[in-house]
Amino acid sequence: MRLATLRDGSRDGLLVVVGRDGRRFARATGIAPTLQAALDGWNRAAPLLAELAARLEAGTADTEPLDETGLGPPLPRAYEWVDGSAYLTHVRLVRKARGAEPPPTLETDPLVYQGGSGALLGPRDPIPLPAGDPGLDLEAEVAVILGDVARGTGATDAAACVRLIVLANDVTLRNLIPAELAKGFGFFQSKPATAFSPFAVTPDELGGAWRDGRVHLPLRSSVVRAGGARLDSDPDAGAMHFSFFDLVAHLARTRDFCAGTILGGGTVSNEDPARGASCLAELRARETIAAGRPATPFLAAGDRVTVEMRDAGGRDIFGRIDQRVVPA
Amino acid sequence: MRLATLRDGSRDGLLVVVGRDGRRFARATGIAPTLQAALDGWNRAAPLLAELAARLEAGTADTEPLDETGLGPPLPRAYEWVDGSAYLTHVRLVRKARGAEPPPTLETDPLVYQGGSGALLGPRDPIPLPAGDPGLDLEAEVAVILGDVARGTGATDAAACVRLIVLANDVTLRNLIPAELAKGFGFFQSKPATAFSPFAVTPDELGGAWRDGRVHLPLRSSVVRAGGARLDSDPDAGAMHFSFFDLVAHLARTRDFCAGTILGGGTVSNEDPARGASCLAELRARETIAAGRPATPFLAAGDRVTVEMRDAGGRDIFGRIDQRVVPA
Repeated sequence: MRLATLRDGSRDGLLVVVGRDGRRFARATGIAPTLQAALDGWNRAAPLLAELAARLEAGTADTEPLDETGLGPPLPRAYEWVDGSAYLTHVRLVRKARGAEPPPTLETDPLVYQGGSGALLGPRDPIPLPAGDPGLDLEAEVAVILGDVARGTGATDAAACVRLIVLANDVTLRNLIPAELAKGFGFFQSKPATAFSPFAVTPDELGGAWRDGRVHLPLRSSVVRAGGARLDSDPDAGAMHFSFFDLVAHLARTRDFCAGTILGGGTVSNEDPARGASCLAELRARETIAAGRPATPFLAAGDRVTVEMRDAGGRDIFGRIDQRVVPA
Repeated sequence: MRLATLRDGSRDGLLVVVGRDGRRFARATGIAPTLQAALDGWNRAAPLLAELAARLEAGTADTEPLDETGLGPPLPRAYEWVDGSAYLTHVRLVRKARGAEPPPTLETDPLVYQGGSGALLGPRDPIPLPAGDPGLDLEAEVAVILGDVARGTGATDAAACVRLIVLANDVTLRNLIPAELAKGFGFFQSKPATAFSPFAVTPDELGGAWRDGRVHLPLRSSVVRAGGARLDSDPDAGAMHFSFFDLVAHLARTRDFCAGTILGGGTVSNEDPARGASCLAELRARETIAAGRPATPFLAAGDRVTVEMRDAGGRDIFGRIDQRVVPA
């Protein structure tokens, strides 16, 4: 099933179930007021939501026309947002471009960072561009929303922790990163609010494309410049070196996580440059390696970013992230 | 007023108001079910909670005897936990001991890290000690709980964002830090769940000791070893180089924060070694600088950690963090 959060002026919005054609929704009133409430009592709520989804398809539920512009992120505020960097091509390219070596544990010890989670962006929210030259970039990603995860959970037990799958645009201010990482405490100001796809979907919605803790489908993102030029990419999201199950095990080594934690896989990246790049930094890295300097500019006011994913039959799974860059 | 969260088996517990003598509490039933709910609608809830606190003191409210062991952290799960490192003595000592220079921007650009916030520890919860030699340490801190903070909020507007003050023990696994920081993405596994004091108090509870965005009182912490030996410290928490207002401005540079964000000031530290240290790493740093190597061991199973603060009249303000180290 596919779930979404309708903006109603409240902090957490209203939970709704979205039909297979993406054109209608049914309010989950009486089951769970919000997605967080559903996640808090998933074993009770999930079968009731699935039943509502079935009635929606059968035409026996009260439905309303869906307008993606009225949706917030599935979780407008989440208890944790942890983002991995599980596509090693991305890490290798970015580091090579700046003449640095990847960490020696690159293939054995996942890279993750703890992101801000209290104020997340909806799929059509503008991306604020701070003044100066911050190097605004997209990062198109796949992420999972977890149930409760106990400290010590291993990769083999992690499948049961994955409740929902979403897409994300992990907005990044590249030019703030060097000074911030030099201080040694990780990203902070360089990672403004992340945006999420309209729909959060249960893994069964992906059929066989969800296997081994990875989503084996192309992630389609685009940057459309204010002047009309566009960049497209469609790398295979299944190329994760570490699976989401591996990442869960990494997270849970020393602490518990509560239901509603969002875990990202990192910027989707493939070795084949023909598949494009899910962030501008990676294009710039390839340019720097080839020609000594980057040519592709970062995002500017008026630019538009889209992120979406289609199944093997061409059906849109998550709805579309579609954001415009505006001066902050 | 002083607020606390009674554990009742639910994820967020029950909000209660605590009397001035710390011996009785009144349930906030009908005002706000949880502390997060009160923070979400603070302008409505705060006067009602203050009225309940007044009735509690006047003996006209329904009260029950308070047992601190039945309390959870004020926010059992928070939307963000961001911890600063605003006591520069701590940063300088720790870096000097390992032969490193503090960052050149130490006095102008605050150090903060984004911590895990979805599963926090109560004041009497045990501290799990992972197997191996993780270098388990306490970090006794003062923290504030914020209301909504808009992107771009400056230090001069930050006072209005501070809703409550708490104490924290930001548990750290020191021996996991070097490898984690070498990867460049900041702390993760090295920062297990943080513990918080029984009571979250409004700034007026501190009277004149809350000024300039700092708490000008000694923070008393102790480590009592399983064998009986003890270490005590009482550094002045007012010695913050950056105030909480400065830290709020740093946080809000590129994003919004929702009500309920917890912001720590970092390990409280004074130049005068006679005031002790709020973490073992700092004692070990002083030992290393003086004698070439550390002598004080990290925490072991059976050790006990306490953190508390008294006002000028000797009254306990926040209740006592009192945790025992147990094998994970």
